[in-house]
Amino acid sequence: MTEKRIPIVEKILNANDRLADRNRGLLDASRTLGLNVMASPGAGKTSLILRTLERLRGRLRLAVIEGDTAPVTLDSEKVLAAGVPAVQVNTGGGCHLDAAMVGDALAQFDLEETDLVIVENVGNLICPAAFRLGTHRNVLVASVTEGDDKPYKYPKMYRNVDALVLNKIDLLPHLDFDADRFRKGVSILNEELAVFPLSCRTGEGLDAWVEWVLAAYSTISARRM
Amino acid sequence: MTEKRIPIVEKILNANDRLADRNRGLLDASRTLGLNVMASPGAGKTSLILRTLERLRGRLRLAVIEGDTAPVTLDSEKVLAAGVPAVQVNTGGGCHLDAAMVGDALAQFDLEETDLVIVENVGNLICPAAFRLGTHRNVLVASVTEGDDKPYKYPKMYRNVDALVLNKIDLLPHLDFDADRFRKGVSILNEELAVFPLSCRTGEGLDAWVEWVLAAYSTISARRM
Repeated sequence: MTEKRIPIVEKILNANDRLADRNRGLLDASRTLGLNVMASPGAGKTSLILRTLERLRGRLRLAVIEGDTAPVTLDSEKVLAAGVPAVQVNTGGGCHLDAAMVGDALAQFDLEETDLVIVENVGNLICPAAFRLGTHRNVLVASVTEGDDKPYKYPKMYRNVDALVLNKIDLLPHLDFDADRFRKGVSILNEELAVFPLSCRTGEGLDAWVEWVLAAYSTISARRM
Repeated sequence: MTEKRIPIVEKILNANDRLADRNRGLLDASRTLGLNVMASPGAGKTSLILRTLERLRGRLRLAVIEGDTAPVTLDSEKVLAAGVPAVQVNTGGGCHLDAAMVGDALAQFDLEETDLVIVENVGNLICPAAFRLGTHRNVLVASVTEGDDKPYKYPKMYRNVDALVLNKIDLLPHLDFDADRFRKGVSILNEELAVFPLSCRTGEGLDAWVEWVLAAYSTISARRM
C-alpha cells in the first residue's frame, strides 16, 4: 500500500495580494515607478501630487490614479488641468483602494510611455494600510494640524510606509505641535522611515521630497528585466 | 383545503441595527442622552469632548466611551483626568465602532446615574457613517484645516449627521478656506444641519455648541417613558 498524502499549498496569497503582484509585474515590465499616497482626509495628498507633477513635468512621463469614495472628479480635474493623464477610481462608498481597482486603472495608461504612476488612495488612515496595491513605494502624508499623537493612534499605517511627508509646516507657529513627541512615535514604529517636513502651500521642503521620488525612479528604471 | 401561506417577515434589521435599537432602548429607559462624535483623525474630537465636559460638569452627570483602532489609552486618560468615567473600546484595527461594542461599553456605566454619554468614534470619515450605534444624535467634527471640499468628497458622512462642529477657526487667517464653498456643500447634502463654527483652542463659539447639547438633553430627559 502506498501512503497517500493530501497535498497542502502553503502560504496561499489572498486575491488582493495576487492582483497586487500582477500590478507590480506590469509596472516592473515597463520600468514604471508606482507610488501609493495615503493620508487622512485633508492632509494634503492632492496638493502634494500637484506640486510633485509641477516639479517633475518634462523630467519624467507622469500619470495619476485618483481614488475617491464618492463620484466626484474634483481632484482628477486638477491633475488633467496640470496636463497629466488621470484615471478616476470611484470606490462606491468603499474606504480604500484595492489591487483590482488599481489594475483596472493601470490598463488605461500606456505604461511603456509612463515613468511614474502616482496613486492617490482614499482619505483614510486605517483601511488602506491593509491592502497592498502592487506599487513600489507607500507614502503617508501627515499634516501638523492633525496633532503629534497620530503615530501612537494609527500605528499600522505608520509602520507600513516607506516615506512620510509631514505637510503644512507653514502653520507650525500657530499650533501646539510637539515635533519631538511626533518623531519619537514615528521612530518607535518605523526607524528607517524617510521623513520630509514640507509645506505644499509655500513650497518649503519640497526639493528633498522630489529628490527622493527621483531616486526611487532611478532604482526601478535601472533594474534588470 | 385551507390555503397555506409562507410567513414573510418584512424589513428585517441587520444584527448591528438590532443591537443599536437595544442601545437606544437602554439609553431611553434611563433618560440618558447618547451622542456619537465622528471625525477625520486629528479634527479635534477629543478636544471637543474635553471642552464639553469642562462646561457641563456639575450640570449633567457625564460618561465617555473612547473608541480607538489601536490599544492606546491616551484619550481615555484625558477624560479620567477630567474626573469623568471613561470606557475604552479597542476595535483591534477595525475602522469604526459598532453597536455591539457600544452596548458592551454602556454596560460598564450605571446609566440610571448618567445624563449624557459621549461616544468618541474611531477617526475616519467613511466607515463610521454606515454603522448606527443607537445614540440619539450623530455629530461630525470637521476642521477648517481639512479644506473646504470635504462635504463634496465625503457626502455620506455629511448627509447623516445632526450637528456639524467646524473646529479650529482660530487658524482661518492662515488658511485658504472658502467658507461659502464649504457651507454650500453642506447645505446641498443636509439642509437642516446645525453648524457650530468654534475653536477648542481659544474657546470661541463653544457656548452655542454646549447650548445645543443641553437642548438635546432636555428633549430626551423630558420624554415620557
